[in-house]
Amino acid sequence: MERTLISDAPRMIGQYVKLAGWVNSRRDHGKLIFIDLRDRTGVVQVVVIPDKESAYQNAKDVRSEFVVEIEGLVKERPGGQSKEDRVGKIELEAAKITVISRVEAELPFDVAKNELDVNLNTLLDNRNLVLRNKKINDIFKVYAELLKSYGDAMRERQFREIKTPKIVSAATEGGANFFKIRYFDRDAYLAQSPQFYKQAGVGAFERVFEVGSVFRAEPHFTTRHVNEIIMLDAEMGFIDSFSDVMDQLEFVMRRISSDISQNCKEELVEYSGEILVPEKFPRIRLTEALEILEKEYGKKSEDIDIDPEGERLICEWAKKTHGSDFVFLTHYPVSVRPFYSMPSEDGQFTETFDLIFKGVEIASGGQRIHHYEQLKNNIIKFGLKPEDFSDYLEIFKLGMPAHGGWGLGSERIVQKILSLDSVKEAILFPRDVKRITP
Amino acid sequence: MERTLISDAPRMIGQYVKLAGWVNSRRDHGKLIFIDLRDRTGVVQVVVIPDKESAYQNAKDVRSEFVVEIEGLVKERPGGQSKEDRVGKIELEAAKITVISRVEAELPFDVAKNELDVNLNTLLDNRNLVLRNKKINDIFKVYAELLKSYGDAMRERQFREIKTPKIVSAATEGGANFFKIRYFDRDAYLAQSPQFYKQAGVGAFERVFEVGSVFRAEPHFTTRHVNEIIMLDAEMGFIDSFSDVMDQLEFVMRRISSDISQNCKEELVEYSGEILVPEKFPRIRLTEALEILEKEYGKKSEDIDIDPEGERLICEWAKKTHGSDFVFLTHYPVSVRPFYSMPSEDGQFTETFDLIFKGVEIASGGQRIHHYEQLKNNIIKFGLKPEDFSDYLEIFKLGMPAHGGWGLGSERIVQKILSLDSVKEAILFPRDVKRITP
Repeated sequence: MERTLISDAPRMIGQYVKLAGWVNSRRDHGKLIFIDLRDRTGVVQVVVIPDKESAYQNAKDVRSEFVVEIEGLVKERPGGQSKEDRVGKIELEAAKITVISRVEAELPFDVAKNELDVNLNTLLDNRNLVLRNKKINDIFKVYAELLKSYGDAMRERQFREIKTPKIVSAATEGGANFFKIRYFDRDAYLAQSPQFYKQAGVGAFERVFEVGSVFRAEPHFTTRHVNEIIMLDAEMGFIDSFSDVMDQLEFVMRRISSDISQNCKEELVEYSGEILVPEKFPRIRLTEALEILEKEYGKKSEDIDIDPEGERLICEWAKKTHGSDFVFLTHYPVSVRPFYSMPSEDGQFTETFDLIFKGVEIASGGQRIHHYEQLKNNIIKFGLKPEDFSDYLEIFKLGMPAHGGWGLGSERIVQKILSLDSVKEAILFPRDVKRITP
Repeated sequence: MERTLISDAPRMIGQYVKLAGWVNSRRDHGKLIFIDLRDRTGVVQVVVIPDKESAYQNAKDVRSEFVVEIEGLVKERPGGQSKEDRVGKIELEAAKITVISRVEAELPFDVAKNELDVNLNTLLDNRNLVLRNKKINDIFKVYAELLKSYGDAMRERQFREIKTPKIVSAATEGGANFFKIRYFDRDAYLAQSPQFYKQAGVGAFERVFEVGSVFRAEPHFTTRHVNEIIMLDAEMGFIDSFSDVMDQLEFVMRRISSDISQNCKEELVEYSGEILVPEKFPRIRLTEALEILEKEYGKKSEDIDIDPEGERLICEWAKKTHGSDFVFLTHYPVSVRPFYSMPSEDGQFTETFDLIFKGVEIASGGQRIHHYEQLKNNIIKFGLKPEDFSDYLEIFKLGMPAHGGWGLGSERIVQKILSLDSVKEAILFPRDVKRITP
């Protein structure tokens, strides 16, 4: 007998079907036993009556999270829809219950609850169980929608999807924060970003995007950092200025916001998530932002840079004055940007930006230097050695157009849309300084 | 002035436009200079006449692969479409030529040629230049189409896209062939496959897929192996048997074949690529395949296993007798499969398969053991220690449905569709034992 999905059952009132899934909960009412059965499409109430002897015996035996197959008759639910929305307006009168898998462990909490209400360590230590909770599980529906939406948006703009190596020969970009690996008879490193490869991609395809793992050996202990993330990268050639790059990123974020709002309605309600997308994302110079912070919030900066608190406040300001959850900060000083950043005409700032979303930086980007000599000189100016970048410099000997791009952190987007306390909650199996299991 | 893409120019005859791209070739005919200009959408012939003095001077100066902007009048081409298809039936009469970037290196070959005709090392050593050759570049159009098609197919079948960690705490599955990394104050490893994590995903989402990097420290020197690849993984719960898994994979390969045939028509012609997709992919037991090899090709096997030559021959047979470029080999012996493979009833074979495509294994899959005790016992039977797999075993204490899945090598699919000699040609920047640059 073919399995029926729970979401299809309401169309099958009066029919005998087989459902399969996990026991979300079981309630023994003396004579009647109620099982809430869960599959990937929903939850349904199963009623087991003593007359169906073998089913009844099995129902007495099952516990939460057992995997079962249940055959029976789909009926309209007496009293109609329950207060508990998920269970819906039908029920199954069980005729046969087969236990597929039993639970062999004590369950530390009840995953059927609406709110787990456990701390972050418990969430991560019991990941396999936790992910069965509907509200937690739904985070990854939003995450999957984000991945789809990003690809769709980039393809619509004629970006070519590429995959670049994560094992690299040198720890570049200054050298710090790379994980070292043993690669046969030599050392190699894990890529911190596909930066050099996506720039090479511009030379071949003009416009490229990549969805891939990046690895950062930063000993951070914050709610914003982990050591392995999925970056949504893009790079585009033949730009007139780095505004073109911001235009594309704005298009992408507008698309992501609208796809998630449309296709994850229920999840947004569950998390009270909303995304304020204005007509036009505000774009303000970093120096201007620092002035606003001082004037509006009495927050002074010693350097021309912005800290996490500043990012949070400038988003407050953008929301208040522009009705926007997004704000581009532009023209970061040369001193806080990588050597390949295109300097502005003044020589002190760069044609770069960060995109701040709901108080957190989600993307960093800008125009890159595309002339060989200028790039080589900048490497020297940064106290680095051109010979350490020979493969990279090679790209610029071959004729490169003006270009720029961004790296966009996928997990932070989901974290902020759903107001999760930590970015780790938006990752199936996060990796931090202390955690490389499960 | 806005840039016009070359593919849009034929609709703009009589208009003054700005094109931008790379100099594909330049021919100085004494009085007239012809430049073939290339952008991501095509190639167009630019005519430069001495009357336009500054343009003419710049045209004398440009060389292959310079990046230029050219303004001028779009005209119908005298004599109509050239033999050289790419250039098309229009030309641009240059009024202004601006050099954006010069080439600062000697070019070792002419990338404008239809066939580069260089060996694999040259292809890989000069990757940034080589990728500008149309025929090579087109490999990655097919590759991008594959990525899109795989995601579309999986989502249509309600698989949830997930991303799992590539840094893992233990070198499992036997322990060999893992790259070791230094992770803060301890050792860790690079994931060889998302196997354990996607099985965990079944517990949470029933059906999952992942497109991600996997790393294999295998010292191979073949045309089929590299040390870092992109795997197209999937895992599904509530299967009746491993036929369900093959059904899904067959659906996916059918979709990929049809998407690539439809959307990469020109590229398939260029590579004389075709894909024979039968009504139903043949599925034969490995032992049967070995009998066929002996009977039809006189090839004897000492063990119940198939080598690369056998895979090539069995595809020849499948093509001849079933009109199929695909063939599933099923029921591999326990001895050649990982410990988590579901044994067949006979205890000697497993509920597993390989999918062979045009002579090469592109996918491996099957049903997995889903009961805790059976899995623990199998780990012991394989001479491994259950305590080394405690995180993995944890999954099976929580109630798991019957499930199975596959790992599908993305690069080999493209290699075989386009009949590339080596899988490395299907990878932008391949990583092998000797090569971790560029």
